[in-house]
Parts: sequence; C-alpha cells; structure tokens
Amino acid sequence: MKKLLFAFVLFFSAQVAAQAQQIKTQLVEYKEGSTTLEGYLAYDATKKGKQPAVLVVHEWNGIGDYTKKRCDQLARMGYVAFAPDIYGKGVRPTTSETMGAEATKYKNNIPLLRQRVNAGLAQLKKQPNVDATKVAAIGYCFGGTTVLELARSGADVAGVVSFHGGLGTPNPADAANIKTKVLVAHGAIDPFVSKAELDGFFKEMNDAKVDYQFIAYSGTVHAFTNPEAGSDISKGAAYNAAADRRSWEAMKQFFAEIFKK
Amino acid sequence: MKKLLFAFVLFFSAQVAAQAQQIKTQLVEYKEGSTTLEGYLAYDATKKGKQPAVLVVHEWNGIGDYTKKRCDQLARMGYVAFAPDIYGKGVRPTTSETMGAEATKYKNNIPLLRQRVNAGLAQLKKQPNVDATKVAAIGYCFGGTTVLELARSGADVAGVVSFHGGLGTPNPADAANIKTKVLVAHGAIDPFVSKAELDGFFKEMNDAKVDYQFIAYSGTVHAFTNPEAGSDISKGAAYNAAADRRSWEAMKQFFAEIFKK
Repeated sequence: MKKLLFAFVLFFSAQVAAQAQQIKTQLVEYKEGSTTLEGYLAYDATKKGKQPAVLVVHEWNGIGDYTKKRCDQLARMGYVAFAPDIYGKGVRPTTSETMGAEATKYKNNIPLLRQRVNAGLAQLKKQPNVDATKVAAIGYCFGGTTVLELARSGADVAGVVSFHGGLGTPNPADAANIKTKVLVAHGAIDPFVSKAELDGFFKEMNDAKVDYQFIAYSGTVHAFTNPEAGSDISKGAAYNAAADRRSWEAMKQFFAEIFKK
Repeated sequence: MKKLLFAFVLFFSAQVAAQAQQIKTQLVEYKEGSTTLEGYLAYDATKKGKQPAVLVVHEWNGIGDYTKKRCDQLARMGYVAFAPDIYGKGVRPTTSETMGAEATKYKNNIPLLRQRVNAGLAQLKKQPNVDATKVAAIGYCFGGTTVLELARSGADVAGVVSFHGGLGTPNPADAANIKTKVLVAHGAIDPFVSKAELDGFFKEMNDAKVDYQFIAYSGTVHAFTNPEAGSDISKGAAYNAAADRRSWEAMKQFFAEIFKK
C-alpha cells in the first residue's frame, strides 16, 4: 500500500512537473570587441529565482540544430543554457572546407578564441535568472577544445566538460591558470586525437595539478554524441549511442558534484 | 501542497526502508579443487526473491575489514555481495612482504587465479537469493587485476569493475573471450601501472573490441579507495576522497546500465 501510494505520488508529481515546464528559447545578440555575435538561450520560464547555468559551445559548423537541441535538453533539466557564438552573427559554414577553415582560424588564434568564449560566458552570467556562482561550460568537438581554453584562460566557472574535443594547446603552461574542474569524455579510438596529443594533455594537467577526470569510451571515434555523424567509424567520426548516453550520465554526475549546495 | 505531500511521502518511504533493512553477514566455506576457501557474504534479509549480486574481490592482503565493509555497503544498496577468497582459508598475510608474495603467486599463475575467482563466482550464483543473470564483479588493487582476469576467462557476468587494479596480463589474446562490459577506475598518476602497461591494455581491449570504459582520476595514485592507505601520495599508494566518491558513483551508473531490466 505504501509502495502504491509512493508510486502514485511520484507519477502525479512527474505529470505536474511536465505540465508546468515552459521552455523559452531566444536568440541573443551581443558583442565581443567590434564583432556582433548571436547566441542561443534556453530556459524554463516557470522557474523562480536564480538557476544554475550551462554554457554550450558549438561544433565546427557554428550554432546549429544540434547545439540548440542540447541547450533545450539542459533547459528541461532545469538549467539556463546558453550557446555562445564563437564565429560571429551569420557565420555558419556548411561544407567541410569552410567549417575547417573557420575552426582553424580560432585554433590558430587562441587569444581570440578565449575572448569569444569569455564574452559568451559573461553574457550568460548576466542573465537575470542565472546564479553566476553556478555556471558550467560544456562543448562538442571544436567546442570541447574551446571549453578547455576557457579553463586555461582562468575563467571562473564551476566546471568544464569536453565531449570529443581536441585536447592539445599551443599554451600548455596556461594550465597553471585553471581554477575549475575538468571532465573529458573521449572516444578511445578517435583518430583526430593523436597519442602524442593525449600524452601531452595528461602531462599538462598533471604538471599543473588540475582537478580532472578523463573517460575513454571503447569503439568510439570523433563526434560520438551527434546522430548526424552517421555510424561508419571508418570515417573517423560517427555516432555511438552507448558512449553518448554514458557521457551524458557522467556529465550529470559531474554537475551533481559541482553544483552541490 | 503537492510538493509538500511529495516530500512527506519521500521522507516516510525512506524511513520505512531504513527501519526495514536487515543486513546479514556470514562466512561461507567452499572448495576450489582440494583447497578450502572462506568467503564473506552480506545481504539484506528482508528482500524477497532473487536479487542482483556483486562479487567483491579483495586486495593483496586477502579478505579483511576493508573488503567486508564494501560488501556491507553493497548489501545496504540491495545487492547480495560476496567476497570470494582467492588465497585460501586462514591465508591472510599482514606484512608487505607476505602480501606481495601471496599476490605474486597468483599473478604468476593466471590459470589458478582464474579458477579461484570463478569458484567464488559459482558460489555467489548458487545462493538462493541471487539472480544469476544479474551478477557483476568488482575488485580493488589485486582484486581489480583479478576481475579483469575473470573477464578474460570468458566468465558469464554482467560487468566487471576494476578499482586501481593492475591492467597487464600475460595473456592479452584472451581478451577475445571477454563477453562482459568492463569499467576501469584508475589513478592518473598511479606509479604501479606503467605507461607501457596502460598502452598494452588499450591495445588489448581495442583489438578485441571489448565494451570498456576507462576513467582516470587526477592527482590519484594506487589504493585510492582505501582510507587505510593514508594521504601521502609520494608513497605511491594513498586514499583520495574525491576519486573514491567519483569512482563509486561511476560504478553505480555502470550498475544502473548493466542491471537494467
């Protein structure tokens, strides 16, 4: 009887929560220097007061459906989610060549990359419904690289999570600036991250005594969280449902720790 | 009001559960070949029917307080927990020399190690309150090595978890026998696992296409889950509260997946 009552109340509460949620999304125009950027914000409008928040950094194609979907998902979990625009308003490359060229521009100019992501972070923190002491940053591929550079810039965030991001940096000594916790979700056979890059990352993080966790998922290559990447691992980038689910759960565990009251 | 009712029922149910639990523990004598072994069993006697179960393999000192504590902890979580005795009844070394000698005996005789751990697994599976289709194996240090060898022996378990175990094996080709999922919780600066051993493990698991997850915890050396290991990482073995907590959570997430109905 107690079990039945408990199950009933659980079910009832879940229904109430589902009905009550009201996810709002909007494009947010802001500036970094003289460049106009356009980010994407998602939150549950029924939540009162200041909420924990997550910065969601896009892949090499810039903000698109995938990034927005992740923001919406986080908003449904109760976070204020914001996808910062690293590239600039309207810069949304659509071919491998232009995506590669755009990403490379920032990988070759780390100071600019850090300015852009920090501008996005500032934008998120100043939202009236955001608890600025509880902000994490996550990123996918290019965005994974970017959140690690955010950490290396010394940004004040509760934690960063890289999903299949590049791990190398031209400035390993900057790991000394890292004040935040780091979680890396990595494809164990990702051909885009060389062994030398991996070893360099471990050395960098260990030397700087960064609080990090590194998870490698077997049979998994680049872009493993994105269904649009297809299923052919021989291409070096492919979706992996198990690794996607596991890494998302690992992120939730990480959030439970860093956002603990 | 709904929230209040929900909170009340949650609280009430938790109280009922806490009152109702009745953890039973007992020593279990059994045989492997002509050798008498003595394992430790822990379970919640109030649970009806067959339960998921966890084999808990001891460190190099054999079954002691630490192993028993982990079994009790798992029993409180609802699992039937059993610490198999790898060494033999009464073989409980107390000095580094004798612990090292005993562990080495099995590391140098992998077939015997596999027989011993499989004998323990059989013992657990035949308990009347165990669901033999839902059995995991976890192990610490020497026990971590042992559960990986259990996997390499082709044992039918839902998953194995190694906490700061040695990852090398004289029989890497046996990874082809692995039918189970593998989780490795590793200290990122564990001096007892060389880089060559790590690389060998990845190659072994990748070549055999094993479903594995590997987590490295920063600033963490050998024995990181055991408070008795002290706090001096320069000794190469030390407790790390964060890595202990995080790896336990990772194990729970792993169990949620492998024991899913």
